[in-house]
Amino acid sequence: SSSTKLLIKGGIVVNAHEMEAADVYVEGGIIVSVRPNIKVGDDVTVLDATGKFVMPGGIDPHTHLGMEFMGTETIDDFFSGQAAALAGGTTMHIDFVLPVNGSLLSGLEAYEKKSRESCMDYGFHMAITKWDEHTSKEMDIMVKKKGINSFKFFMAYKGSFMVNDEILLEGFTKCKSLGALAMVHAENGDAVYEGQRRMIELGITGPEGHALSRPPVLEGEATARAIRLAGFVNTPLYVVHVMSIDAMEEISKARKSGQKVIGETVLSGLVLNDSWLWDPDFITAAKYVMSPPIRVAGHDKALQAALSMGVLQLVGTDHCTFNSTQKALGIDDFRKIPNGVNGIEERMHLVWNTMVESGQISVSDYVRARLFNIYPRKGAIRAGSDADIIILNPNSSFEIHAKSHHSRTDTNVYEGWKGKGKVEVTISGGRVVWENDELKVVPSSGKYIEMPPFGYLFNGIDKADAKYLSSMKAPVKRSRATV
Amino acid sequence: SSSTKLLIKGGIVVNAHEMEAADVYVEGGIIVSVRPNIKVGDDVTVLDATGKFVMPGGIDPHTHLGMEFMGTETIDDFFSGQAAALAGGTTMHIDFVLPVNGSLLSGLEAYEKKSRESCMDYGFHMAITKWDEHTSKEMDIMVKKKGINSFKFFMAYKGSFMVNDEILLEGFTKCKSLGALAMVHAENGDAVYEGQRRMIELGITGPEGHALSRPPVLEGEATARAIRLAGFVNTPLYVVHVMSIDAMEEISKARKSGQKVIGETVLSGLVLNDSWLWDPDFITAAKYVMSPPIRVAGHDKALQAALSMGVLQLVGTDHCTFNSTQKALGIDDFRKIPNGVNGIEERMHLVWNTMVESGQISVSDYVRARLFNIYPRKGAIRAGSDADIIILNPNSSFEIHAKSHHSRTDTNVYEGWKGKGKVEVTISGGRVVWENDELKVVPSSGKYIEMPPFGYLFNGIDKADAKYLSSMKAPVKRSRATV
Amino acid sequence: SSSTKLLIKGGIVVNAHEMEAADVYVEGGIIVSVRPNIKVGDDVTVLDATGKFVMPGGIDPHTHLGMEFMGTETIDDFFSGQAAALAGGTTMHIDFVLPVNGSLLSGLEAYEKKSRESCMDYGFHMAITKWDEHTSKEMDIMVKKKGINSFKFFMAYKGSFMVNDEILLEGFTKCKSLGALAMVHAENGDAVYEGQRRMIELGITGPEGHALSRPPVLEGEATARAIRLAGFVNTPLYVVHVMSIDAMEEISKARKSGQKVIGETVLSGLVLNDSWLWDPDFITAAKYVMSPPIRVAGHDKALQAALSMGVLQLVGTDHCTFNSTQKALGIDDFRKIPNGVNGIEERMHLVWNTMVESGQISVSDYVRARLFNIYPRKGAIRAGSDADIIILNPNSSFEIHAKSHHSRTDTNVYEGWKGKGKVEVTISGGRVVWENDELKVVPSSGKYIEMPPFGYLFNGIDKADAKYLSSMKAPVKRSRATV
Amino acid sequence: SSSTKLLIKGGIVVNAHEMEAADVYVEGGIIVSVRPNIKVGDDVTVLDATGKFVMPGGIDPHTHLGMEFMGTETIDDFFSGQAAALAGGTTMHIDFVLPVNGSLLSGLEAYEKKSRESCMDYGFHMAITKWDEHTSKEMDIMVKKKGINSFKFFMAYKGSFMVNDEILLEGFTKCKSLGALAMVHAENGDAVYEGQRRMIELGITGPEGHALSRPPVLEGEATARAIRLAGFVNTPLYVVHVMSIDAMEEISKARKSGQKVIGETVLSGLVLNDSWLWDPDFITAAKYVMSPPIRVAGHDKALQAALSMGVLQLVGTDHCTFNSTQKALGIDDFRKIPNGVNGIEERMHLVWNTMVESGQISVSDYVRARLFNIYPRKGAIRAGSDADIIILNPNSSFEIHAKSHHSRTDTNVYEGWKGKGKVEVTISGGRVVWENDELKVVPSSGKYIEMPPFGYLFNGIDKADAKYLSSMKAPVKRSRATV
Ligand SMILES: [Zn+2]
Ligand SMILES: [Zn+2]
Ligand SMILES: [Zn+2]
Ligand SMILES: [Zn+2]
Ligand SMILES: [Zn+2]
Ligand SMILES: [Zn+2]
Ligand SMILES: [Zn+2]
Ligand SMILES: [Zn+2]
Repeated sequence: SSSTKLLIKGGIVVNAHEMEAADVYVEGGIIVSVRPNIKVGDDVTVLDATGKFVMPGGIDPHTHLGMEFMGTETIDDFFSGQAAALAGGTTMHIDFVLPVNGSLLSGLEAYEKKSRESCMDYGFHMAITKWDEHTSKEMDIMVKKKGINSFKFFMAYKGSFMVNDEILLEGFTKCKSLGALAMVHAENGDAVYEGQRRMIELGITGPEGHALSRPPVLEGEATARAIRLAGFVNTPLYVVHVMSIDAMEEISKARKSGQKVIGETVLSGLVLNDSWLWDPDFITAAKYVMSPPIRVAGHDKALQAALSMGVLQLVGTDHCTFNSTQKALGIDDFRKIPNGVNGIEERMHLVWNTMVESGQISVSDYVRARLFNIYPRKGAIRAGSDADIIILNPNSSFEIHAKSHHSRTDTNVYEGWKGKGKVEVTISGGRVVWENDELKVVPSSGKYIEMPPFGYLFNGIDKADAKYLSSMKAPVKRSRATV
Repeated sequence: SSSTKLLIKGGIVVNAHEMEAADVYVEGGIIVSVRPNIKVGDDVTVLDATGKFVMPGGIDPHTHLGMEFMGTETIDDFFSGQAAALAGGTTMHIDFVLPVNGSLLSGLEAYEKKSRESCMDYGFHMAITKWDEHTSKEMDIMVKKKGINSFKFFMAYKGSFMVNDEILLEGFTKCKSLGALAMVHAENGDAVYEGQRRMIELGITGPEGHALSRPPVLEGEATARAIRLAGFVNTPLYVVHVMSIDAMEEISKARKSGQKVIGETVLSGLVLNDSWLWDPDFITAAKYVMSPPIRVAGHDKALQAALSMGVLQLVGTDHCTFNSTQKALGIDDFRKIPNGVNGIEERMHLVWNTMVESGQISVSDYVRARLFNIYPRKGAIRAGSDADIIILNPNSSFEIHAKSHHSRTDTNVYEGWKGKGKVEVTISGGRVVWENDELKVVPSSGKYIEMPPFGYLFNGIDKADAKYLSSMKAPVKRSRATV
Repeated sequence: SSSTKLLIKGGIVVNAHEMEAADVYVEGGIIVSVRPNIKVGDDVTVLDATGKFVMPGGIDPHTHLGMEFMGTETIDDFFSGQAAALAGGTTMHIDFVLPVNGSLLSGLEAYEKKSRESCMDYGFHMAITKWDEHTSKEMDIMVKKKGINSFKFFMAYKGSFMVNDEILLEGFTKCKSLGALAMVHAENGDAVYEGQRRMIELGITGPEGHALSRPPVLEGEATARAIRLAGFVNTPLYVVHVMSIDAMEEISKARKSGQKVIGETVLSGLVLNDSWLWDPDFITAAKYVMSPPIRVAGHDKALQAALSMGVLQLVGTDHCTFNSTQKALGIDDFRKIPNGVNGIEERMHLVWNTMVESGQISVSDYVRARLFNIYPRKGAIRAGSDADIIILNPNSSFEIHAKSHHSRTDTNVYEGWKGKGKVEVTISGGRVVWENDELKVVPSSGKYIEMPPFGYLFNGIDKADAKYLSSMKAPVKRSRATV
Repeated sequence: SSSTKLLIKGGIVVNAHEMEAADVYVEGGIIVSVRPNIKVGDDVTVLDATGKFVMPGGIDPHTHLGMEFMGTETIDDFFSGQAAALAGGTTMHIDFVLPVNGSLLSGLEAYEKKSRESCMDYGFHMAITKWDEHTSKEMDIMVKKKGINSFKFFMAYKGSFMVNDEILLEGFTKCKSLGALAMVHAENGDAVYEGQRRMIELGITGPEGHALSRPPVLEGEATARAIRLAGFVNTPLYVVHVMSIDAMEEISKARKSGQKVIGETVLSGLVLNDSWLWDPDFITAAKYVMSPPIRVAGHDKALQAALSMGVLQLVGTDHCTFNSTQKALGIDDFRKIPNGVNGIEERMHLVWNTMVESGQISVSDYVRARLFNIYPRKGAIRAGSDADIIILNPNSSFEIHAKSHHSRTDTNVYEGWKGKGKVEVTISGGRVVWENDELKVVPSSGKYIEMPPFGYLFNGIDKADAKYLSSMKAPVKRSRATV
C-alpha cells in the first residue's frame, strides 16, 4: 500500500537542471527527505541506486487511452496503457477527453468511467470541437470545478473534429480569460481533405498515401496560423505533436519575437522517419499511420536539435494504439486506417538514448516539468513531492519488442530498437510497481490530478495587455464639426 | 486620330534592363522604328526628348474605377480615372471585375458598360467570391473567350467577398488548369472581424481603429496560407497589395524555395506610413483608410528594399477613390468608411522619385512588364509595340496637390509631395494626350486588351508535376494476402 | 559578522522557475532552512518580508572594476563597484582579468591585488589577447588551479586586444579540452577601424561618430563568425553583450540547429537607445559611449523579447565607469572617449521593471543561474546555499540619480529613471549589508569564488564528437594500385 | 571567315524573358536582322531551325584555362577549353587572371599570351592577392585601359591567395571607386586550414577528407562576412561558386534587405553531390575534388530552386581541369590533389536539362545576360549584336562521356549523364563552328572583349551614399565650453 516506506540509496538524484548525490526517503506516497546518508530502520525497504540516476517518473502529456476513434476503440485502455507506461518509467499521463455530442460534461463523465481502474496518476485535457454559449459555459466548469487547465482545438479532421478560424478565435479568447492553455492539432484540414481525394484519384490507396496526402507544408501552415491567431488574442499556445521542420520553424520564429508558444514533439516524430509507410507489407506500413504523419528523414534530426536547445519544449507520445486487425480496416483505403502509434512505454528509454546518450542534452536537461502547473508536486525529487520515481541505469541496455512490451497491441513501431539507459525501477505513489522486469500494478491505485489554471505562462499577460492598450493612443479625440 | 505620325527625337530610350540613345517613330498607333537619327517628312510631329528618357507608358495592374463598394461608388469612373492616369504617365490599367449576383458573365457585362468611354487601354482581372459548378464554367468562358487571365480571391471582407480555404483550393486548381493567374487579397477575415469588434468595444470608432483592428500579423498569416495552398496545388500565385514586412517575408521565403509567387506592392504601402490615421481631423485621417491598412513607418522602407532587388516584383496603386462626403459615411464608425486611396496619377512620379532618384534601382529597372502576358505589345519601346509612350525629364520637378490633380476626388493622400523626374509627355495609342501640363483625352479611344492565358509562369508546371508524381514511388504494390 | 543569525519571515521565496511561501533561516553565512513557519530564539535577527519576494542576490556576469583601459582607469574599483552592486541587490559579480604583457598569471596576480578589499563575492573570467605555447599552458593553470572556467576573446579593438580567426580556432579548441567556456566580444575590428577612419575623415569627431563607425552589421558579422567557428570546433560559446537584432538573430539560428550558444544581454542594450549620443552636450553624449554601441530604438525591444522566451539567456552590465573628466579625454576625437557605462547598481531594478513589471517574464523567470557551474551554491534560496539574499518589494518604487547612486562616477546613464519593484534588503554572506537605503559593507569580507570547469554545457560533447567521427565513414579504404 | 553570310530559318528566337518565331540573318560576324520570313540570295548559307530554339551562345562567367595551380597547370589551355565550350554551345567565357609576383600587369601580360590562340571571344576578371599602393594603381589601369571590370578576392587558400578582412575592405572600396565588381571566393581559410590538419591527424588522407575538412558552415561564414563588409562599403558584391544552402541563404537575406549581391552557382554544385568523393577508387574520387567542395545531396536541389526564382543569378562552371596523372599528385594527401572539375562543354546542356526540361524555369529564363556590362553586344539575338548563336533542339538528346568530350582531360565528372535538349549548331563570330557533332574551330579567331565599368549595379550608388550621409545628422554641433 501507499504506506510503504522506501529508501533509495546511493544514487545520483536528478532534478530539472541539477544533479546531486543523495538518498531519497519515501513514506506514505510522498518523498519525505532527499539528502546524503539517510539512516532508516528495518521496516524500510532499501533500494540500491549506486551508479544509477534517481529521477522523477516521466509525465506523458499526450495520450489517448480507451478512445473511440474512426469506428473502433484503441486497444489500450487506461489500465493497460498505464501498465505499459509504468514499465517504461512514466508515472503520470495527461489524456484528451473528447466531448460527447458536443457536451464537455458528458465527455468528462465518460472519461471518468474509462479511467476508473487507473494504476497510476493522470490528468485531462479537453477537446473543443464546436462552439456556442453552452460550450463556453462548460469550459468555465471544467476549469473552475474539474481540474482541467488546457483545451485542444483540431485544425484538421474535416467533417468531424475540425474547427474554423472563427472558433479558434472564440476559443482562444475564452481560454485566456480562464487561465487555461490553448492547444492545437495543427494541420490544414481543408487541404488534407483535398490531398486525400487526390491520392485516391491517383490510385494511391495504401499507407504511403497517408503521408503523401498531408505533406509538411500543411502542418507548417496551420501552425503559423494558430500562432498568429493566439498572438492576436495574446494568449499562450501549446502546439501538440510538432512533426516537421516547417512547424518547428514557425514556433522558433514566434518565440524569438517574445510570443508564448510551446512546442510538443512526440516520440515517433523525434526518432522515426516515413520510410516504413512504403513497406510492401500492409500491416507493417499501416502501423506507422498517425497524424500529422511521420516525416521523411531529416525532420527527426531537426526536431531533436530544436528540442536540445529549448526551441521545442517537451516530448509526448500521442500513444493511441490499434492492433493489426484494427489497422486492417483501411486495407483498401488509407483514409480508413485508424490513426495512431504506440510509445507510452518506450518514450523515456528512447528519449534518453536519442538525446542524452547521444550527447545532445545533459542528464539534468532530461527532466522537464513545469507546464501544467503541477510542479513540484509532480516532476521533482524533493521533500513534499509525490513519490513518483524511477531508477535509471545508464550502463544497462534496453531492447524493444512487441512480444515483450506491455501494451495490448500486437505490433510496435520501435520493434527491435536497442539502446543504453534502462529504467530498472519505477515507483508510483510510493509503491514499487516495476522491478526486475516485472510489473506489480494495482487497479484503481491511480489518482486523478487536478491541474489549476493560470500557470506561469499567464504571468504578466494582463500587464502586457494594459501596456498594449495604452500604446495605441486611441481613441483620438475628434470634433464632429470637422466633417 | 491614331493615324498621327510622331517622331520622338534625341532621347534615351529605356526598356526593361536596357537603355540606348535612339529616336522613336510612331505611326498608326504603333511604334514603327527605334534607332538613332531617324529622318522624317514634314507631316510628322516631332517631339524633342533631348536629355530625357523615352519609356513605355506605365501599366497599373491594380485599380478600381467605377466600382460599387460599401454602399457607394468610387468617385472616379473609367474616364476620369484614366485621364488622371495619362496625366501621370500610365497608359494602361487592369481593373477588377466584380461578379453580379455571383455571376462572372453578368459582372463582365457591367464592366463592359462602365468602361465604354475609356480614353486609354485597359484589361480585366475577375474576382471569385463564391464557388459552384457554374462559377467554374464561367471561369472557362472568361479565359477562353473574354481575354481574362487572372482571378482574385478575397481572404478578408467576412460576410461579403471572403472565401474559405476550401474555395481557395478549388479556385486555385481551376486557375491552374486554365493557365490563369490566381491572385489573393491576403488578410485573415475572421480575425479582422474580431479585431473590429474589439475596437468598437474599446470605444475606438475613428480611422485609427481601422489600422489597429487589422495588424500586419493578419496579413502575414493570410499570405503564408495562400502561398502554401498555392504550393500544394502547384500553381503560380500573385499576392496583391503587399503592405507589410510580414507578408513580404513570406513571399521571400517561398521564392527562395523555388515557388512561383509574385508580390505586388502598391504605391501607398511603398511610400506612406500610418501616422495620418491618428490625425485629429476626421477627413484627413479617413482619406488614408484602405485595406490592408497602410502600416507603421519601417514597413515602407522594407518594401522598397525588397522591390529593389526583385523579392517583390511590381507596383500598382489599388486606386479606389472616395471623396470627403463619401468618406464621412464612417464618421461614427471606421467600419463604414469606404476603403481606398488615390494613386493612379501619382504612381509613376513617386516610384521614380522613391526608387530611381534615391538610388535604389537603376533607370532601366524602372520598366517592368512581363506578368500579364501582353509583353512586348505593351511595356516596350520597340518596333511593333503599341505606341504607349512617355517622355520623362529627370531634371524637371513634380508637385502633387488635390487642387491640380486630375482625379475627381477632392483630396489626395500625397498632398504636397514634391520630387524630381517629371512625365512631360504621354502618348497613348500613338496620340499625344498629355503635354505642357495639359490633357487632350478622347472618350472611347481606349481599347480593351485581351490577355492570353499560360504566361511564362506556367512554363514547366506540367513537367514539375510529372516529376513530382514519379518521385512519390506510389502506389506501392501490395499483395492483399499479407493481411 | 558571518556568524549572524537571520530569519526572513513571511515572504514569497523565489527560485528559478518556482515560488513558494516560506521563511528562510540563515546562520554562519549559509542558508540553513527554507520552510513555512520557522521558529527561532531571541538571538536571531528577524526580517519581515510579508508581501515581498525573497530571492537569491543577483549575479552580474560581466563587470570591469579597477580596469586600466584607454589610458586611464575605471573610477570604480572593486570596493566601490561592489558597494554599488549590493545597494542594487547584486551579491556576486564576475570580472574580466586582463593579461599583463601577455601573461595570464601576471594578470591574475594584478587582479588578486585589485580585489583584496572586496565586500562581496566575486569570480573571474580571463581574457586571451595573443596566442602561443605559453598562453596555452597558462590556460591549463587558470582552469586547474585558479578557479577560472571561462576565457574571453576580443574580435574588435584592432591593434590592442583583437585576435584573428586563427587564434579563435586555437583558443576555442583549448577551451574545449579544458571544459572552459569560450566567450567573445563580437565586432569586426578591421571594419570598425575603417569605420572610425571614415568618420574622422567626414569631420565627425563627436560621440555620435562612435555609433556611426560601428553599425549593427559589424556585430552581426562577428557573432555569426564566432558561432560558426565554435560550431566547427564543437565547443559551447558565450557571446558577451549582445547589443543588436543582428547578433541576436544569429544566436537564435544557431540554437535552433542545436548548437550550444549562450547570448548575454547587458542592461544598457536592453533598455536604452542611441539617441543620447546625438546630444549637443558633449558630456551627456559621451557617457553613453560603450562598445558595441547602444543601438537605435527597436533593438532594445527585440532583445527584451528574445530574452523573455529564452533565445537570449542572461543580463549583465559591462559596468565600466569613467567620470566626466575621464570621458573628456575624447573631447576632440570620439576614439579617445573611454568606453563604458554604469549599471551594476541599476541592473536588478531595471530588469525587474522592464521584464517582470511589464509582463514580459514571470517572477520565477527573473531568477536565472546555472551557467558558471556554481549553482546551487549561488543563485538559489535553499538549505546549504550561500546566504546571498535580497528582499524585493514589488509595490515599492525606485528612482535613479547620479547624486544618490553608490558608484564613484559623477553621472548615470539611467539618470531620472523610475519604476516599481525595489530591493529593500540585501544580505551578503549572511550579513545584512543594505537596509533602509543604507549600506553597511565591510572591506575584505568578500570571497573569491572558484568556478569549476565542465559545466552542464559540456555534457555530451564527447559523445557528439564520437558520433560525428563515426558518421564520417572515413578514411575510405583504397588500394594504391588503383592509380 | 567572318564575312560568311548566314540565315537561320524557321526557329523560335529566344531572348531574355521573351520568345518569338523569327528568322535571323547574319553577316560580317554581326546579327543584321531578326524577323519572320527573311528572304536572301544564293550566297547565303541557310540553316534550318524548324522546331528548334535559336538563342544567344552561352557565356561562362567562371573558367580557368591554362592556369598554373598547385604545382601543375590545367590540362585545358585557352584553345582546347574554348573548343570544348563551343561544342557545348558556349561562345564566350570570362577567365581569371592571376597576378605574377603580385603584379596585375605582369599577370595580364601572361594571360594575353595564354589566350593568343583563342577560337572564341573571352574576357578577364583579375584576382587580387595582396594589397599595397601599387596594387591600387594597377587596378586603375586594369579598369581604365585594359577592359577589366571585376576583381576577385580569395577568402581561402591560406598562405597563398588568401586575403584578410583589412584587404577586403581596401579592395572593395577601390572597386567601388572604379565601378568594378568585387568578387569573392568565400570560404574561411583559417578554418579550412585547421580542418585539413584535423583530417590528416585522423588519418583521413583521401579525397573524402577534402569535403570533410571544409564543411558548408565555412562557406556560409565567409559569404556572410563578405556580404556584410561589402554592405559596409556599399558596393555591389558577386559571390562566385555558391555551393551550399548556407551561402545561398546569406545571399537571399541580403537581397531581401535591398543589398546588391549576386550569387553565381556553378554547374557541379547545381547538379552533383559529394557521394563520389567516398568512391573506393582514388581517381574516380579525386576527379570530384574542387573548392568549395561539392556538397551532400540536398544542397543541389536547394540551389536549383533559388536559381529558378532569381535568388541566385547565374551559372558558371569553374572549369579547371586536371587529368588523372595530375590528380594523382594527391594520392597520399588530399591537400595535394589539384582542385578543379570540368564543365565548360556540359554547362548549357545540363542547365537546360535540369532547369528547363524539368520545369523549374521557362525557356525564356534560360537566357540571362546583363551583369558584365556587355549586353546587348553579347547575350542577345538582335540586330547589331555579335553573331554568337546556338540552335538547340529540345527533342534531341545528349550524352556525356570522357571518350567523346572535347576537353583534353581524360575523365568527366558527368560521365554517362544523358538528357534532352541538344545544342546542334554553334555559331561563333558569325561562323558555324559546331554542326553535325563536328567542330570547325579556327585558332586566333577569338577576340578579347573589353568590359566597361559602372554596369547597372552601380546605378544609384552615389545617390544612396549621399542619402545615407545626410541621414546621419552628424557632425552634431557642440560648444567646447560644455566640457
Ligand atoms: Zn492530433
Ligand atoms: Zn493526439
Ligand atoms: Zn484588396
Ligand atoms: Zn484592390
Ligand atoms: Zn566588450
Ligand atoms: Zn566588457
Ligand atoms: Zn574559387
Ligand atoms: Zn574558380
